[in-house]
Amino acid sequence: MPRTAVVALGGNAITRNGQSGTYEEQSRNAHAMAAAVCALRDAGWNVVLVHGNGPQVGNLAIQQDEAASIVPALPLFCVNSMTQGQLGSLLSLALLAEGRGRLPGVVSVVTHVMVDPADPAFQRPTKPVGPFFTEAQARELAENRGWDIVRDGDRGYRRVVASPKPVGIVEVDAIRALIEQHMIVVAAGGGGIPVMAGDRGLEGIDAVIDKDFTAQRLAASVNADALVLVTDTAKVHLDFGTPQQRAIDEMSVDDATKHLDEGQFLGPKVRAAVRFIKEGGRTAVITTADRAGPSLDAAGTHADDRTGTRIVGVRA
Amino acid sequence: MPRTAVVALGGNAITRNGQSGTYEEQSRNAHAMAAAVCALRDAGWNVVLVHGNGPQVGNLAIQQDEAASIVPALPLFCVNSMTQGQLGSLLSLALLAEGRGRLPGVVSVVTHVMVDPADPAFQRPTKPVGPFFTEAQARELAENRGWDIVRDGDRGYRRVVASPKPVGIVEVDAIRALIEQHMIVVAAGGGGIPVMAGDRGLEGIDAVIDKDFTAQRLAASVNADALVLVTDTAKVHLDFGTPQQRAIDEMSVDDATKHLDEGQFLGPKVRAAVRFIKEGGRTAVITTADRAGPSLDAAGTHADDRTGTRIVGVRA
Repeated sequence: MPRTAVVALGGNAITRNGQSGTYEEQSRNAHAMAAAVCALRDAGWNVVLVHGNGPQVGNLAIQQDEAASIVPALPLFCVNSMTQGQLGSLLSLALLAEGRGRLPGVVSVVTHVMVDPADPAFQRPTKPVGPFFTEAQARELAENRGWDIVRDGDRGYRRVVASPKPVGIVEVDAIRALIEQHMIVVAAGGGGIPVMAGDRGLEGIDAVIDKDFTAQRLAASVNADALVLVTDTAKVHLDFGTPQQRAIDEMSVDDATKHLDEGQFLGPKVRAAVRFIKEGGRTAVITTADRAGPSLDAAGTHADDRTGTRIVGVRA
Repeated sequence: MPRTAVVALGGNAITRNGQSGTYEEQSRNAHAMAAAVCALRDAGWNVVLVHGNGPQVGNLAIQQDEAASIVPALPLFCVNSMTQGQLGSLLSLALLAEGRGRLPGVVSVVTHVMVDPADPAFQRPTKPVGPFFTEAQARELAENRGWDIVRDGDRGYRRVVASPKPVGIVEVDAIRALIEQHMIVVAAGGGGIPVMAGDRGLEGIDAVIDKDFTAQRLAASVNADALVLVTDTAKVHLDFGTPQQRAIDEMSVDDATKHLDEGQFLGPKVRAAVRFIKEGGRTAVITTADRAGPSLDAAGTHADDRTGTRIVGVRA
């Protein structure tokens, strides 16, 4: 049986900073990412790919807003589901092309993720989404649509939503069945479509689940061996931006927890990696897409320019 | 082993004529459809659901166009993939709610459908998509984006695209694996994302595949026992709109072919039904959603107000 790796990829790996998000840009970036995923696959891994959707959901939210007087704007969780279709298709086509003749298949699954209504994040929405508004527009949207809107720097006002923790993956059985067929599975795009139990069963809710946390929850749910959190830099650093800055080849979950308590790492990646190991995973890796394969294969003492940062239960 | 039915549902079953397409409207309609699908499921059928997306892709195309000066408009096949995510999520949530406690699972699969570059439809694009334009806009879009644009009645100019026949379902292995898990599978929404072989593998192409023909192709590919083509009227009629008009309870594929040659039936449904039987399917049904189950269970001589039109190999 091949081992299974869940790979989390930012939406800005598909629409890069400074790009506007044309199809040609997205397709070119997707092909580069797909080549890295296929390399992992060729090294004997089943792969589940969780993509972000920041730039893409942002563009769609602008379109929803611009045309709101002509066609009804749909809720954010619907717009999120649109990006799962669009980026799922984009990545499927890129993976099929890059893995031509070698893969048993590629499939993108529309994925819902349960969140807890009691999650404290709902008390304090902080995640900005969609276009900037004037103060007058902001006031009107807050009143008419019940949005939380805050001033966001000099560029104006923006909607903010909660960023709750993922509690469970609704489509986990389907994803597991597809992994067992050794297909590359694209799932839980944008961190998943957030749902919670309501009067009519599961109901969508406007929120943004961090895709690294969702990837961790999914990895634990399918008993994945490895979690790969793709980023722009080869390795995680200690004392980043100071003269003492140093790259980490490998750290134990205990050391990582200590460093988190010290406030060493910004962002969710080290936290997601630690949680993955604590819930029974073997290896978490934080690095660039092309270093994922070499990093997973590297023994504890084997680390070089081709590898990233490994987080493990106990250091080898 | 339960039998398998592929059910094709129009996009106007989700956004009805006269509705603007708000989330509340779409959700209410989806729940009604889901109840019918769950009834079929409770009668012992595996179900694959193929939905249309006419009104939804139309709204998205308007949004793409309205915001085109701010964010890049994506190609039609991308907009199609967005509706697979959005309607896949909508239908999944409705099916989970209506089938609460009874279903092993529901899953929506982003689905690509192969078309033939030599399909004669590409020589004569006829399917109108997206917003109406003025003559000046039409001229500019034809020149800058290479669109085929025609005058569409008094309301102005519209883009037209080809409507080629579906040749193969790219994700058929995944869909088959999920059927084997007895999950309700939502697949090939909007007739599927049209792709053809290009320099970089499968490439998306701006076209609209008829969802009834795609449902037939998918049904044949997964060896489904039945094809259900949902429509607004209980039964298909002969000599429709004349004093001789009469409803059909059951017809053989030979009679159906003869009536098609006489020009009796508009639209693709009878044609898709005939092709399904000719390719080895057992029963095709054309009727309303709530009559699907009773129609599939009805013997040849048993037909009443609860059943629709059955197309079979040889009449019972």
